[in-house]
Amino acid sequence: MRATVIHAARDIRVEDVADPKVLTPTDAVVRVVAACVCGSDLWPYRGVSPTEEPHRIGHEFVGVVEDVGADVATLNVGDFVIAPFALSDNTCVHCRNGVHTSCASGAWWGGEDVDGLPIDAGQGEAVRVPMADGTLVATPAKADDSLLASLLTLSDVMGTGHHAAVSAGVRPGSTVVVVGDGAVGQCGVIAARRLGAERVVMMSRHADRQALARDFGATDIVEARGDDGVAEVEELLGGVGADAVLECVGTKESMQQAIDAARPGGRVGYVGVPVGGAELPIGQLFSSNVSVGGGVAPVRAYIPELLDDVIAGTIDPGRVFDLVLPLEQAAEAYAAMDERRSIKTMLRP
Amino acid sequence: MRATVIHAARDIRVEDVADPKVLTPTDAVVRVVAACVCGSDLWPYRGVSPTEEPHRIGHEFVGVVEDVGADVATLNVGDFVIAPFALSDNTCVHCRNGVHTSCASGAWWGGEDVDGLPIDAGQGEAVRVPMADGTLVATPAKADDSLLASLLTLSDVMGTGHHAAVSAGVRPGSTVVVVGDGAVGQCGVIAARRLGAERVVMMSRHADRQALARDFGATDIVEARGDDGVAEVEELLGGVGADAVLECVGTKESMQQAIDAARPGGRVGYVGVPVGGAELPIGQLFSSNVSVGGGVAPVRAYIPELLDDVIAGTIDPGRVFDLVLPLEQAAEAYAAMDERRSIKTMLRP
Repeated sequence: MRATVIHAARDIRVEDVADPKVLTPTDAVVRVVAACVCGSDLWPYRGVSPTEEPHRIGHEFVGVVEDVGADVATLNVGDFVIAPFALSDNTCVHCRNGVHTSCASGAWWGGEDVDGLPIDAGQGEAVRVPMADGTLVATPAKADDSLLASLLTLSDVMGTGHHAAVSAGVRPGSTVVVVGDGAVGQCGVIAARRLGAERVVMMSRHADRQALARDFGATDIVEARGDDGVAEVEELLGGVGADAVLECVGTKESMQQAIDAARPGGRVGYVGVPVGGAELPIGQLFSSNVSVGGGVAPVRAYIPELLDDVIAGTIDPGRVFDLVLPLEQAAEAYAAMDERRSIKTMLRP
Repeated sequence: MRATVIHAARDIRVEDVADPKVLTPTDAVVRVVAACVCGSDLWPYRGVSPTEEPHRIGHEFVGVVEDVGADVATLNVGDFVIAPFALSDNTCVHCRNGVHTSCASGAWWGGEDVDGLPIDAGQGEAVRVPMADGTLVATPAKADDSLLASLLTLSDVMGTGHHAAVSAGVRPGSTVVVVGDGAVGQCGVIAARRLGAERVVMMSRHADRQALARDFGATDIVEARGDDGVAEVEELLGGVGADAVLECVGTKESMQQAIDAARPGGRVGYVGVPVGGAELPIGQLFSSNVSVGGGVAPVRAYIPELLDDVIAGTIDPGRVFDLVLPLEQAAEAYAAMDERRSIKTMLRP
């Protein structure tokens, strides 16, 4: 079959690889219907994270179950499934606590399973899924094609934006600032409104992304950054910072922007991978009582409730996909996202 | 009158100073009944924070209103009052948000008020209290002498321990670890139990402090520190870290201990002044979804509810005072706390 392999910075290839098979009784094989490129895939693409040797890449996909091992209990051949970006058994204490990304048996797409077997990555034609019962979530019925994009967001960006909002303590009436106008930030807007936020300020300098954020429920846009941006936020919010700030980038600057935009006693929910060396200014946090929570989003925990809303049509996060390419054009998908020509790019095998 | 003045590291003197008077219409003058030394007073005492020139010191006291300005509306001469460690107007947006330590008109004992007038510190015979309506909380009736110590804890340590517990998200059934066996940590035990914690593990190496923590409701004691301490905590709590960790010290080591003792998705509530350079390991926090909240405790917000429990006798935080000295022996009070001969020392003018 065909799958995406990263060889080095800016060297993405689609190559022939071995067909996946059920290797252990808890495996499933999923035929990928749609996959996509994540903002965090851009770190190795840009060389920020080194690529020591060629490896498979991609951790977001949806598809149809093609085969199951003997011990798979909750999935049947033909089920349409959502694969969260981390594998988990959904039974250990951490999963029961809703932190599936800390699963005692957890693994990552493109990594190794508990038996030491290599795990396929998501940007390919098919994927062997270890711990299939724990990892995958089947949709109640065959997914309507119009829902495909939104279902795909449940594998990462919608759940991640939701995690930012939950971690920032968004609740009915909250004032919210979103730092980061990429797919996760956009989903953060959806999540904040869904949790009842009264005001949602998107910090964005791009007209198309501003428009999308407004469609998703942002009430205000702030283009300025730094102290000027904070001043504009405070002017919008009655002279104080926000109750909740969603940090959806992961750089030192964006984290500082988020902390500065929170009111005393406010909360920053952060989900941007801190590859660029985000720092937390303890003195400022202490004196202002701004708390910081979040991390790698346990999207598996959130899929059921978000799936209900996608199916009901009350949220439509799939609109973050503004480019759809065939899998064979994965290199162009990366380039389009890297150059900000696309918010988020879907790959169709 | 007599009041405590710090001249330099380890140079605490009780001197004659000007008698306080009502200077603005919102002032009150309070005759101090009891004051005390705070763990944070030990930073300048030890020279960790420099003392550039002699100044008044102390920020925890209770007393009786002796005089009030013309605009003071809620206090009467003769009222017994609790003074929180920060002054606030109790009306601005931050106070309404419960973050009185960020009050728009806020000030500190020993500092300056909004008019630029010097504010007395707490370790003296009497104190001019600006913004008296906002800052002071009167007890419903004349305080019973047996409650004096517990009422005094409401000026700082009990409210601060409570803030740690609230910031760590303690709720019924929570598993809790307390890092720091000083007065704040001890009050953190009381607060955690009061909020319904099922297990409270105190990390302490001192028999007397262990015993006090147990009296306050700690269910377990861990003497080990570092990784060994974490291993013991996890053994006690079913193989995982705590839902909530109260960091009540403020050093880099204690903060790391607290973060390490939290389970994935757990919360650290920190109230130790980070003078020693506490750091937050963003990579660890991100991967484990451990959040960090807290800061300088808005004890003014908590006094009413905690006062009810003190008066009802359901909590008895005054037991943290294991030494009572006359004000004139303030130097010995500092030495006793510095040398850990006393958990917390009360000063009686």
